[in-house]
Amino acid sequence: MFTRIDHVGIACRDLDAAVAFYRSTYGFEVAHEEVNEEQGVREAMLRVSGTDDGGASYLQLLEPVRDDSPVAKFLDRHGEGVHHVAFGTGDVAGASAAVAGRGVRVLDAEPRPGSMGSRIAFLHPKDCGGVLTELVQAAGSGPDPEGS
Amino acid sequence: MFTRIDHVGIACRDLDAAVAFYRSTYGFEVAHEEVNEEQGVREAMLRVSGTDDGGASYLQLLEPVRDDSPVAKFLDRHGEGVHHVAFGTGDVAGASAAVAGRGVRVLDAEPRPGSMGSRIAFLHPKDCGGVLTELVQAAGSGPDPEGS
Repeated sequence: MFTRIDHVGIACRDLDAAVAFYRSTYGFEVAHEEVNEEQGVREAMLRVSGTDDGGASYLQLLEPVRDDSPVAKFLDRHGEGVHHVAFGTGDVAGASAAVAGRGVRVLDAEPRPGSMGSRIAFLHPKDCGGVLTELVQAAGSGPDPEGS
Repeated sequence: MFTRIDHVGIACRDLDAAVAFYRSTYGFEVAHEEVNEEQGVREAMLRVSGTDDGGASYLQLLEPVRDDSPVAKFLDRHGEGVHHVAFGTGDVAGASAAVAGRGVRVLDAEPRPGSMGSRIAFLHPKDCGGVLTELVQAAGSGPDPEGS
């Protein structure tokens, strides 16, 4: 059902500085940047490797663009660091339903837009051993009820 | 230099319960369990996927076996959740030296034993945007100065 660590989401106060750190220290390059207005973040995806399901693993660097965004609140409480872990799946709606059936609260009743055209759902960290967990269906993979 | 997210380390109070959660909720199976006396943890490695460098990505679940272990102190301060992120490399000694040369404090002057016969080094989280970062050379890969 879950085929890869799609990404590790990392909260930072200065996206450009974080990108510069990961590039200069480890050689990771930016595959994509975007602003997600709904989540209130500016983000960069740094590709680490391809995976055996044909997908890839990324670091997702997240800078809040408004003070009331979840990532801004995380930074206020915890400071910079790991914000969430995301698992890749070919069917985020099916995987969300399966996980919900096992007693985990799914925070998104319907999958919503994630990075790079993906569809995502978040799980409640209190049901996941303190780990804010995201399920990701990459763009162009798996079923798409909107037919886009 | 770094070819994969080798693993995400997750601190838990009850390893058996955490393993049961990840198996029943996501279908991840235990590839390996061990006690690392030096680090004061009992741990399970759950394989998530293979990666295009021939390695794999895991979740590493960590339960402290003594109250003064770093993971026990983490649990006291933060509760359960993500403890560290590990990047895979073919040469942990060389990668550590390279990273140190870029101004990041390497906590292990010499690589030390990690999970499944790997050799590892930790980086100072304050030099890594709040992320406790581990470098991992898998067993049997890359240069090994001990010739084992």
